This record gives sequence, C-alpha cells and structure tokens, in this order.
Amino acid sequence: MVDVSEVEWPVKRWAREIDDRLSAAGDAGPLVNIKADDRREFDAIFLGGGAAGRFGAAYLRAMGGRPLIIDRWPFLGGSCPHHACVPHHVFSDVAAQLLLERTFSGRLWFQDIGGKTASIKAVVEMFREGRTGPHAFMNFQSKEQLDLEFVLGAPARILDAHGVAVAGVSYRARNLVLATGARPKPLAIEGRNLQGVFDYASLVDTLDYEPGPTALVVGGGKTAVEYGCFFNATGRRTIIASRDRPLAMINDGETRAFLIRRMEEQGMEFWPGSELLALTGDERGRVESALIRGPGGEARVESDFVFLAPGLVPNSEEARETLGVAVNADGSIQIDSRLRTSVPDVYAVGDSTGAPMEMFKARKGGMYAARNIMGEEAHYRLGEYPDFMHTHYEVCWLGLGEEQARERYQNVVVLKLPPDNPDGDAVALPAGDRVMLYAMMKPELSGFQKLVVDGDSRRILGAFHVGYGAKDGFQYLAPMVRKGLTVDELGEMDELFLNPSYFIQLCRLRAGSKVLRGM
Amino acid sequence: MVDVSEVEWPVKRWAREIDDRLSAAGDAGPLVNIKADDRREFDAIFLGGGAAGRFGAAYLRAMGGRPLIIDRWPFLGGSCPHHACVPHHVFSDVAAQLLLERTFSGRLWFQDIGGKTASIKAVVEMFREGRTGPHAFMNFQSKEQLDLEFVLGAPARILDAHGVAVAGVSYRARNLVLATGARPKPLAIEGRNLQGVFDYASLVDTLDYEPGPTALVVGGGKTAVEYGCFFNATGRRTIIASRDRPLAMINDGETRAFLIRRMEEQGMEFWPGSELLALTGDERGRVESALIRGPGGEARVESDFVFLAPGLVPNSEEARETLGVAVNADGSIQIDSRLRTSVPDVYAVGDSTGAPMEMFKARKGGMYAARNIMGEEAHYRLGEYPDFMHTHYEVCWLGLGEEQARERYQNVVVLKLPPDNPDGDAVALPAGDRVMLYAMMKPELSGFQKLVVDGDSRRILGAFHVGYGAKDGFQYLAPMVRKGLTVDELGEMDELFLNPSYFIQLCRLRAGSKVLRGM
Repeated sequence: MVDVSEVEWPVKRWAREIDDRLSAAGDAGPLVNIKADDRREFDAIFLGGGAAGRFGAAYLRAMGGRPLIIDRWPFLGGSCPHHACVPHHVFSDVAAQLLLERTFSGRLWFQDIGGKTASIKAVVEMFREGRTGPHAFMNFQSKEQLDLEFVLGAPARILDAHGVAVAGVSYRARNLVLATGARPKPLAIEGRNLQGVFDYASLVDTLDYEPGPTALVVGGGKTAVEYGCFFNATGRRTIIASRDRPLAMINDGETRAFLIRRMEEQGMEFWPGSELLALTGDERGRVESALIRGPGGEARVESDFVFLAPGLVPNSEEARETLGVAVNADGSIQIDSRLRTSVPDVYAVGDSTGAPMEMFKARKGGMYAARNIMGEEAHYRLGEYPDFMHTHYEVCWLGLGEEQARERYQNVVVLKLPPDNPDGDAVALPAGDRVMLYAMMKPELSGFQKLVVDGDSRRILGAFHVGYGAKDGFQYLAPMVRKGLTVDELGEMDELFLNPSYFIQLCRLRAGSKVLRGM
Repeated sequence: MVDVSEVEWPVKRWAREIDDRLSAAGDAGPLVNIKADDRREFDAIFLGGGAAGRFGAAYLRAMGGRPLIIDRWPFLGGSCPHHACVPHHVFSDVAAQLLLERTFSGRLWFQDIGGKTASIKAVVEMFREGRTGPHAFMNFQSKEQLDLEFVLGAPARILDAHGVAVAGVSYRARNLVLATGARPKPLAIEGRNLQGVFDYASLVDTLDYEPGPTALVVGGGKTAVEYGCFFNATGRRTIIASRDRPLAMINDGETRAFLIRRMEEQGMEFWPGSELLALTGDERGRVESALIRGPGGEARVESDFVFLAPGLVPNSEEARETLGVAVNADGSIQIDSRLRTSVPDVYAVGDSTGAPMEMFKARKGGMYAARNIMGEEAHYRLGEYPDFMHTHYEVCWLGLGEEQARERYQNVVVLKLPPDNPDGDAVALPAGDRVMLYAMMKPELSGFQKLVVDGDSRRILGAFHVGYGAKDGFQYLAPMVRKGLTVDELGEMDELFLNPSYFIQLCRLRAGSKVLRGM
C-alpha cells in the first residue's frame, strides 16, 4: 500500500506509478488517498471510479460532502480511457488520417501509400503506451483539484449497503453508489477463446501480432463499424457481418446511405443478415477461419483477426448476490429517477444501470445521485439527446430523421448539402475544416449534412452531419432544438465561416419566405 | 453573351463555363440569367454577388421580391471562394496536416518528412484548379434553388441610384445595393511591385515559381499569422514582421501565450515592433531581400517570397464618385442601422461598409437590407460575436478574456485544460477529435481551452479554445452566453464525449459548490 494523501505528485509521477501497477506482478500495492485526520463519516462510497463514480464523487465533494472512490484499477476514469472511448477516438483519428492519405496518395506532399498496409499492432501498442497519460491526469485532477479520496489498484468486496472491503480494510459510509460499469457481452460461439479473437477490451490489452490481410468484424452497432473502419483504413479487407442492417442507430435513411456509399468505396463489405456460427483455429490455437450463415447460405471467411462487437452487459452480479438489488432481464440494475436501487441507501449510476451506455448519462447520473445523497430531491430524467459515431468520418445526429418527421408532420422541409442535383455527391459543398482537400480534389468525400424542419412551425426537428467538427456544435444545438429553435433563429446567429455545419446559412437562405421551402 | 435563363446546367457544366471565362481572353462573354418574360420591376440591383449581395438577393427573393445580381466575375460568391476564406481554409488544413506529419515523421505509418519541404506552388495550383468547384456550386444553387437572376462575368458601371450598365445593357431597379467588397490595402513601399511580393489575392492568382527556403510575412493580423503558419508548415523559415504584438485580436493572454509557444516550437519567428522599409529585387525584377527596421535596428532578410498582409480597404470609390455616397475616413461607406447610405434608395452591405469584415456580418447585412427594401423596418445592430482564426490549430474565442473579466468582475473563476500543474502543457488533456495522436504521443500539442466565469452570477463571461472542432460549437454557444448561460446550465447539457471542448464536463465538476472554484 502506498499512502499518497500527504504528497503532491506531478502528472508524470502518477504515470510512473500507474505503469508500475499495470505492468508488474502486482507487488506495488494499492494507492490509498484518505485523509487520516478527517474524522467525518463518508457520505458515500462510490464503487467504481469511472465516469459515473468519479463525476458523482466530484459533485458530492463540491456540495460539501465526503465521498470515497474505490476502484480495482490503479487509475480513475474507468474503462473509457483504458479500453473504450479513448482508444476508439485514437483509432477513428487514424481512420480519418489514413482515408486522407490514401485518397491523395502520391499527390502534393503525400507519400505513395497505395500498396502499404498500416500496422494495427503498432497503433495498438502506441495507444497502450500512451493511455497512461490520461490515466495519470485523472488521478492528478481528482486528488489535487477535486479533493477526492480514493483507494485504487485493488479488488473490492461489497460487505453490505454501507460497507466495502478493499486491500484488507473495511470502509463504511452512509450510502453506497454502484458504479461498476459494463463489459463485453460473452458470446457462446465455438472458438470464442481462440487467439486472434478480440473484443474492444482484449484488443488493446492483448494484441501481440500483426493481423493478416482480412479483418472480420461481427456486429452492426457503433463499435463494430467504428473499429471496422479503422481496420479498413489500415489497408485490410474488412467484412462487417451483422444480423441487422448496419448503422440502424442513425435515424435518417439518406444519411445512412451516404455513409454506406463512402464505406463501400473504401472496400468495406457489409454482410447483413449474417450469423457467426463457429470459429476454427490452427494447431497453435490461433483463429484461422469463421463460418458465417447469411441470407445466401453458409460462407467461410479465412482470417486470423476476428473482432466481436456484440454489445455490453452491465456488471451487476455482485450487487445482486450480496445486496439483493433488483435487476432487469438484461442484467441492468433497477433504479428510480433519483438513482436509487431497490435496496435502501444503495444507488446505482452509469453503465451498470443499462442502456443507453453513454458518457453524459453516466456522469449526470453520478451528479444526480450525489444531490439526492446530500439531501436534495433531484430527479434525473433522460430526455432526447444528441448522438454520434465515427466511420472514417465523424457522424452526428439529433432529433427526428426525415422519414420519422414525415410520419408525424404534414409539412416537412429539408435543407441539405449536397442538395439533390445532377452531379450527386460529387460537388464541393459542404466544405469546412478537415475536408478542404476533399472539397478541392475529391468533392464526393467532403461530407453530407441535413436539417429536417417543420415547415408550419418552422422549428428544427432533426439535424444530421457527416464530416468533421460538428460534434461540439451538436451538444449546444440539442438544448436549443428541444426548446423550439426555428430556422429564423438559426438564421440570426453568427456563423464562423467556413463552419463545419452550414445550418445557419442554409436557414438564412430560406428564412425570408413565409412558405418555407427546402433546398 | 450567353443567355442561361432557359437551361438547367449541372454543376459540372457551370464549372466548365466558369473555367473558360477565368482562363480565356474573355471572348466567352457574360453569363446572363434574366427571365425575359418577367415584366416586373427589379426591387433591387445588388452590385456585387459575394456573400453580402448573394445572401441579400436570396433573402429578398424569398420574401417575394425581384433582385438582380451583377458581378464582374463569372461566378457568385465573390472573393471568399476565389481569394479569401476558401483558400485560407485549404492552407490551414494543409498546415494542420503537415504539423501532424512532421510531429510523427517516420513513426507508425507516417512518412519520414524530416528534411522535406512541401511545395507551396503545388498547393496553390491545386487550389487554383479546385476553386471552380465551389464557384460552380454557387451558380447552380443561386439559379436553380434560390431562383436568382444575375449578369456575371462583365464589368459594371453605376449610372445612378436606380441604374447599372453591364455588357452593353442598362438595368434599372427601385433600389441599388452596394456589395462591392474590399481589397488588400496598397502599401507604398519601395519594391512593392517586384515579382515574388504577394498579398492573399495575388498569391493564389499569380504564384508561378517555387518559393525558396525563407518566407517573410509582413503584418500581425489574422491573415499574416494564418498564411505564415502554412508557409512554416511546408518546411520554410518563416518570419512574421509586424508593428504590433501578434495575435492581439485574441483577448486572453494565456491563450495567446499557448499559441505563441506552439508556433515558436515550429520555428516561427515573431518580430514585433518591425516596419518594412524597402524591398530589393534582382536584375529580373524578382524580390531578393527586405529591409526591416525593428527595435534593435535595421535588418536585411534574404527572401524570394514576401507576403504582405496589411489589411483591407473597402471598395467605395465608384459609389462615392458617381452617387456621392458619404464615406468614412477609412473609405468605408456610411450606413445606418437599416443599411441605408446617405443617398436615398441606395444601400450598402458587407466589407464595403468597413470593419469587422466578417462573413456573418456580410450575409446578415444583405438580409437586413432586403427586409428594409421590401418594406419592413429592420435594424441590424452588430452585437458581440464569436470569432476565430487558424494557426496550425483552429482557435476560437468569444466574450471576455481573463484580464478583461478581472477588470470588470470581483470574483472571476477560470476553468481550463491543461490546468496549472507541475508538467505545464505536457499533459494529455484536452484530448478530442484530431488531437488524439498528440494526446497519446506528444501531449503538449493536444490543445488548450478555457472558460472565464463570473463566480457570483455563475455566468459564462468568455470562452477560448485552441485545438480542432470547436468552431461549430462557438456559433451556438455565443447566443446562449449572451442570454446569460451559467455553469449550472452547461453542466446539465449532454456532452458527446470525447468532445473537442470540455466545457460541459468542466462545469459539471465544479457546479456542485455554491462557492464556485476554478480548476
């Protein structure tokens, strides 16, 4: 055990301590930051220091309470910087960069990358080495800036609704907050445990060879497509085998179609209606092929690299068994709008409470749990929220897709770029940051964007963006759209041209007319 | 003359027609799109089809009026897609891309670019060829979607407040809207007309050789720094010689300092307090050196490539001489809040009306002029607006800088990333789209961001972002900040993690406390 409560470590020192614990046999011991001279009772133990637990603890501390975070990992931040959001964004940045380099291979200053396959192993190793940086920053920020107490780097055990044991010590608190996260859904497929078969977590933790020329991705959700685009961009044949239509989470058909066109141009193969039957390995225990049943019968894919993305299951077993908290059929912990479980004084937040397993929901859940623990009556109700994913592009959306809007509204008006025109996608608008070279030399790659408007009330019903640089804007657009943002109000805003989303100027071009027309 | 009013051309056809006119000796003739069977009087002639004229005409047309646009260029959109915003964004994308490639030269799949100088000429030629794409799209959109009438590709002459002559025909209208733009300020410097001495317009139009190893930029404004970063990123020694402190338009000292550190790391040299005295050429009339007087005396810079960015002057001479419109000392046309000049029925919009020469102001000015022409009483008052520029990064800002805020508020609270910490900039946060590789491998390059907050009212006073992908968000944040956005409201929003700006989550980490603290 290392008591860090009396020292102020720079971020780099945290990085060394975390690296020691992630790489070593474990004799470095847990990292304990508890103020020995503080005699107050803990208001809450947050079991899990990921997004939900860390933000909940920070909010509770800011309210004047005393939280304790306990996590088996030697860092705060949870799976996001270790396995999930952060590597996914690294890989998506790589995919975007390689799309650019492949598109302009040999032109201007670009290298001739035509026949070159980029190393997945090198990118994964780069991430594995680099991820300690965010980990270390989280520890620094949590201790020095947020004044949080924690015990990290040791497995914990729930004692009861008020107690957790970790590293040989029992800690007690007025409340327990379950922030235990989720994990990749286990797949009962023959050959699941062969080497070369990965999920998002094992990929970054264990990949130790260079994958061959074919990547097989099983799944059709965000993770499947995001990682598939990365594999594809490295120069590998990439198959996305999924039961359902891919990109189904994007609720606008035209946006989906644009994305599929761009991915297929890059050589990605979509096999919807497919089921993975079995994986076969060689004598060394390495996967060498997959048997897939699709609409046209069975097919065998030769590949030494299979990525499974079947979704997530909440980590709720221990809480159910030890405390008896009620869980739903999918394993998610049942909570009310105050984040309370079925057991008094026990709260649950974040991915352990089920879908949608989104960052904002985890963090805000933590915040609302803290408020309730500290005596407020605070109800967290998940409203409509903006969403995003990556292909080789960033894709953002909010509100209603065109088809949904037409079902509900009489007079739906669409403003989009490119508009319907004889040259299709091959026109230079939209153009904005990070797509300028496409706009000049390969305009069909410069993106797609669309506003869905109720022509009668002139309110924005939905927004869709394929390109780069709109993600931040969608965060701030969303609450305005919920409050009834109109094309006229958008047309009065001040665009920062060339803006990634052209929504302001598209609205302004049409806003003069009482009878709103599309374009 | 080509009458295009009866034909629907695809975008590609427009591109050919525009290319013919931009490259040929001029015998292709003007492009005339006027509905011969429409007997209505024109409500307004927009003299100039750039941002202000085109958006004004579109708004007027949407209101049911009949506008006519006249422009000497064979395309709509004006200087922006031809000389200004669009090439600037191309060059800034190139600078960002080359910063990435140089930083990771020889690592992962990146080429070894160490000793390589990228060709400025090739990038300029690529743009010169590609710019027809946006031009063509503007013509297509204006005619087919916005139903605008125009005469393009011929010089025009103002007859009076109701008449303009172009291509041998006189057109009359109820009103005249001057949308004549601005041009680079002439510099009365010896050697100004040597070959190799450019401004932003002549650079893209006339560069016909590969610049040598040193680029000299004269000026300290946005254009100077933006083009300077591009030249630097290509691998050239780049000197920014300016009278004033560079980046003075960014009203936060810490943000400026971060930017200067990053630019100086790339080898950029800032010479504030400098004045260009003379340029000297060789026997062929090519510039070969510049004499500069600085705080330490005179210095001679050997360079065959000098970029002048002394600012813009409004194009107001013809209107002043022909119509007698009143102009200000700087040449800008005087207007009232209804965009009216001193001459009845004559309006002026856009850059010809002076600073700030920003896209949103041009377009909105056009819109407000249209409303007044069509009988509304509509006052356009320029309020606080968000702003941006590019270095190798995108830089966005709005509201008060920290120093300004401390002058006006007792209790200023700052939330920023990286925070003050023993490792300085060299920590991995912020991390977001397009900076993930920096965050993992070279964290001091991953950006800087800052919120300035009034701790008493909890309102956001200012926001600053160095990185990528925040520009769109600043557009939508700005009106919310003007309406009094608080840290508590930001903390309730739904972030799309990893978001380029961490403002939402930074606010949430502190919002729990009644006494707001910085971090």
